[in-house]
Amino acid sequence: MNLQELRKKSIAFTRGKIREAIKEDVFIIQLVAHIEDLDRILNMLIKRLRDWYELTLPEVSNLIIKQEDFVDIIRKERKNLMQQFDIKESMGKEFSKKDLESLELLRQECEKIIQLREKQTQKLNELMQKHYPNLTTLAGGLIGGKLIELAGGMKKLIEFPSSTIQILGAEKALFRHIKFGARPPKYGVLLGHEYVASSKQKAKAAGRLADKISIAAKVDYFKGEFVGDKLKRMLK
Amino acid sequence: MNLQELRKKSIAFTRGKIREAIKEDVFIIQLVAHIEDLDRILNMLIKRLRDWYELTLPEVSNLIIKQEDFVDIIRKERKNLMQQFDIKESMGKEFSKKDLESLELLRQECEKIIQLREKQTQKLNELMQKHYPNLTTLAGGLIGGKLIELAGGMKKLIEFPSSTIQILGAEKALFRHIKFGARPPKYGVLLGHEYVASSKQKAKAAGRLADKISIAAKVDYFKGEFVGDKLKRMLK
Repeated sequence: MNLQELRKKSIAFTRGKIREAIKEDVFIIQLVAHIEDLDRILNMLIKRLRDWYELTLPEVSNLIIKQEDFVDIIRKERKNLMQQFDIKESMGKEFSKKDLESLELLRQECEKIIQLREKQTQKLNELMQKHYPNLTTLAGGLIGGKLIELAGGMKKLIEFPSSTIQILGAEKALFRHIKFGARPPKYGVLLGHEYVASSKQKAKAAGRLADKISIAAKVDYFKGEFVGDKLKRMLK
Repeated sequence: MNLQELRKKSIAFTRGKIREAIKEDVFIIQLVAHIEDLDRILNMLIKRLRDWYELTLPEVSNLIIKQEDFVDIIRKERKNLMQQFDIKESMGKEFSKKDLESLELLRQECEKIIQLREKQTQKLNELMQKHYPNLTTLAGGLIGGKLIELAGGMKKLIEFPSSTIQILGAEKALFRHIKFGARPPKYGVLLGHEYVASSKQKAKAAGRLADKISIAAKVDYFKGEFVGDKLKRMLK
């Protein structure tokens, strides 16, 4: 085997290794990051929509706080909305139909992004359920995915102690704690989980949840059998 | 007239004044800001699309530099692309069709945003042409709109000397100049104008263009007749 052949073989070998390194994790991480992008985009677009719509009927924007509701409600015509909310005289200006077309395009885009976000979240759930059923049962698709993203892969996630899992996503607060002696964070992304959110003692709940998640992730990684249900019941 | 009546009347009067203050400018400014938002969003989405697609066929991403081309070309199937670009062995991994669905959703969203950006730019052009024909003839819809946005309205734009118009959009560089003695900026958004971009002496070209834009804006604001063509010819 001459040198050139050796070179070829070793390049092929490295290519293969790189290809192998691409696991489901990487795909899941991209999907999670994409969903977070969509959140940011939606925020940007709806902020613009409100700003813009306030030129024609500022009173409604103050009454409707939920973003999705706002996108939906301004589909109605101006005069109908004025009747509905009992606005006799608005501070806004009435624009021509032609002018409002570009505003309507923006409104429709907001709707589309909301739908896309739903679809992608569903895909993430399916993917997580398929590859990591235990983790998904305990944490849900989105939070489970975020944990994998924050850890930088499933392999790294299972190497963390559960106390680290508990505060994943609260890195800023953790560094404030280390550098300036602020109070240490008690939960990161786990706060979004309903078990923690609905609990009165959030820190304790986050600890218990992180405990079970840590077990579930290990079982998933080593392809153990399904114990998600059992672990979940232990939380009650 | 008792106090309560007076109060009512003065509120109605103020409402009216506020309503009057909403000119076409404000609408144009929102539209311009929206188009800039879309640019930012598109950048974010395509960056994610590349990142993600590189898991399956990284070689193509390096070959196609233009963003729109990339969005279009990865519509094709992986094996066809490998043939087209003569890639014998890729470092990427082949994903299942089901996995790739979410990537395809993102790709379609990129396409939609590109279309929306085009539509909104066209609407802006129409709006600008209708209200400020002279300015639009000289600067174009988007750059003219950006000037109005940066100045904070047409009224303010016409109060600027042409040397200010020349560097609108280069505020950061201007403050670097004032604070740290860096070289003063020579052009802001006007650099995007083909007259400046295609000129060898860009600073001089920007100055001449700003000169004519300043005249055009004043004619538009005071509802003078159409002189855009004449001003444009003087630039040649």
